[in-house]
Amino acid sequence: MPTKPLVAPVRGFAVVEFEHRTLQLQKHMREQQVDAVFFTTEPEFRYFSGFKSQFWESPTRPWFLVVPAEGKPIAVVPEIGVSGFDQTWIEDVRSWPSPRPEDDGISLLATTLAEVSTRFRRVGAMLGPETHLRMPAQNFVALQQILMHHELVDVSSSVREIRSIKSQAEIEKVHFACGVAAAGFEYLRGHLSAGMTEREACKAMHLEMLRLGADNCPYLISSSGLGGYDNIIMGPTDRVLNDGDVLIIDTGTNFDGYFCDFDRNFGFGDVDSGTLRAYDAVYAATEAGLNIAAPGCTTGDVWQAMWTELEKGGALGNDVGRMGHGLGMQLTEWPSHVPNGDVELKAGMVLTLEPGMAFAPNKMMVHEDNIVITESGCELLHDRTWQTMPLI
Amino acid sequence: MPTKPLVAPVRGFAVVEFEHRTLQLQKHMREQQVDAVFFTTEPEFRYFSGFKSQFWESPTRPWFLVVPAEGKPIAVVPEIGVSGFDQTWIEDVRSWPSPRPEDDGISLLATTLAEVSTRFRRVGAMLGPETHLRMPAQNFVALQQILMHHELVDVSSSVREIRSIKSQAEIEKVHFACGVAAAGFEYLRGHLSAGMTEREACKAMHLEMLRLGADNCPYLISSSGLGGYDNIIMGPTDRVLNDGDVLIIDTGTNFDGYFCDFDRNFGFGDVDSGTLRAYDAVYAATEAGLNIAAPGCTTGDVWQAMWTELEKGGALGNDVGRMGHGLGMQLTEWPSHVPNGDVELKAGMVLTLEPGMAFAPNKMMVHEDNIVITESGCELLHDRTWQTMPLI
Repeated sequence: MPTKPLVAPVRGFAVVEFEHRTLQLQKHMREQQVDAVFFTTEPEFRYFSGFKSQFWESPTRPWFLVVPAEGKPIAVVPEIGVSGFDQTWIEDVRSWPSPRPEDDGISLLATTLAEVSTRFRRVGAMLGPETHLRMPAQNFVALQQILMHHELVDVSSSVREIRSIKSQAEIEKVHFACGVAAAGFEYLRGHLSAGMTEREACKAMHLEMLRLGADNCPYLISSSGLGGYDNIIMGPTDRVLNDGDVLIIDTGTNFDGYFCDFDRNFGFGDVDSGTLRAYDAVYAATEAGLNIAAPGCTTGDVWQAMWTELEKGGALGNDVGRMGHGLGMQLTEWPSHVPNGDVELKAGMVLTLEPGMAFAPNKMMVHEDNIVITESGCELLHDRTWQTMPLI
Repeated sequence: MPTKPLVAPVRGFAVVEFEHRTLQLQKHMREQQVDAVFFTTEPEFRYFSGFKSQFWESPTRPWFLVVPAEGKPIAVVPEIGVSGFDQTWIEDVRSWPSPRPEDDGISLLATTLAEVSTRFRRVGAMLGPETHLRMPAQNFVALQQILMHHELVDVSSSVREIRSIKSQAEIEKVHFACGVAAAGFEYLRGHLSAGMTEREACKAMHLEMLRLGADNCPYLISSSGLGGYDNIIMGPTDRVLNDGDVLIIDTGTNFDGYFCDFDRNFGFGDVDSGTLRAYDAVYAATEAGLNIAAPGCTTGDVWQAMWTELEKGGALGNDVGRMGHGLGMQLTEWPSHVPNGDVELKAGMVLTLEPGMAFAPNKMMVHEDNIVITESGCELLHDRTWQTMPLI
């Protein structure tokens, strides 16, 4: 039976959404006495400008977006990108002929920053955890030398705070990506069979998700083994799926620049009872996470609620380093569900619940689901994972 | 008629290939008196280690690969990644529980670097053009403070020189990706029709390329317009293709971590004669590039040969900044075909020829083809683009 079509939300965003995002940043900038912020990485560039291009796949040229204390952002970009801004709310687009290794936009960026940072002479950039500067390190040094009378300030905590609360339009995009992936997993459940390889299973699901409306699928991994798997970030491989195996597939499927990030586990034939019990324990841990996740609760509370269930279920440990995280324009975003995590959940946060444990040597069981925090609790963004492990 | 199946090459590489790559780097390191190099970005990490994971899509955690003056590289990685190294030639894998914002691998990286850089006390990293450090800028400062008695040295020109010469196994992977994309374009020629949208055209080709053996397709853009298009890095959009339109589709399709990067142009119905002439001029420019590209010739020679043809054909200018580039693990790699470019072509380089011009206001024509430099000249890695613009 063909999967029923899903209805995709409208692409892009209203201009008012970019205005709102920029005003929020400018409020933080005033509080931090920062005159201007510059961005170098795709998610932030897109978040504040609306410029959406696959060309970031090319590492050759740097791109810069400058957000002044007032008014619209200014794009400082390679000539090849200028006409693409016709589709955005940005009006001030400055460019240079790139690639130009001897000055790949640095003097133009410095001039622009100097022009809009005369009050406090403080310039913000993304310098903190979970960030990087997408520009040559030598050029960053050169920029600091040109702006030697300006102070450089980290604004990553402000930006992650703003980005962590999703708008309704953003939530709808993640929701659609989640719906596509959930339907892909259901499709796969009906089409998997022993004798297939991990790669064949992933390819079948990949094709189905594209047919259902995903734009692309930058993350689609799998792992499998007799009674369990030992990692959740490699694969797919050409390993043949056999009786007694467990297969995990985890996917970051994308629609209009927004990700889902969740997984499903499948058993083949006669699966060890310890493995089935591990599935049940991790399912219970997700239930505990779903029950507790709400405004006012912390990432540490969510972690603790899930870990308590996993310990009851015989957890030997967890090498993943956290049990869920933010989600949106990136496959993984701030914050993380970690022991003693002190980030308070707020309505509009889109998060994963990812309880996982080693239940035997080299055997892990990991579930992952995607939720949005509401005013009173949380809601799943896709059908709940099967209550017991499906046996193929 | 279904497209005939293409035969995919073997995945991965023999260990001897990683040994050879590492020995080449270590030779450069001796010449530069560098004790150890560390890498933070996926292509270099994979090139020297063989560690291949889609998990780089998650920006949360930094990953480090240390290449000492002698012996195998050392992985300094988050705990979540350790078991993945069982599939590589790496033996020394050091890890920390990540995410750990207060010390996300920095002290472990510094300790490792200090341990293997006692001779010259010079540590290499990728700091130059077309690179970035995939780690928080604050952490890079912290690393430099810990290693304050070491000198930091840019090794990007050595690394790009090594990586620019592809092995036979690497060329076969690009060749296969090219074959898949060429077959995708042929399929599309038979399935395009006026009334389709750019997005529908790209989706049809995307699905076909996955069916033919592509792993994924991180880059698949299109642009279209009456008699021409005004950019080559945006789209696809929901624009409906109509009589008189020209459509360009450009794709970076990937197989086993290696890209193709080439395009095709399609006309619909009654296309303006000036546009058809522009197609012919750009086709002739590629011919000129194919005729000249050979060991000993420079990137400037290739640019000049193509530009001469474009000027004959009425070029008004070129906003792309170059007319082709290296290709391999990344969609675009060093070197670039630029005016007066002085990089000498060598056998084993995989390059694109990408002549393009504005031939009327807001109307560009760009062709792109992928070649490998041989001992005596060059060879196309896919069927030659159609000699005249196909009219749908």
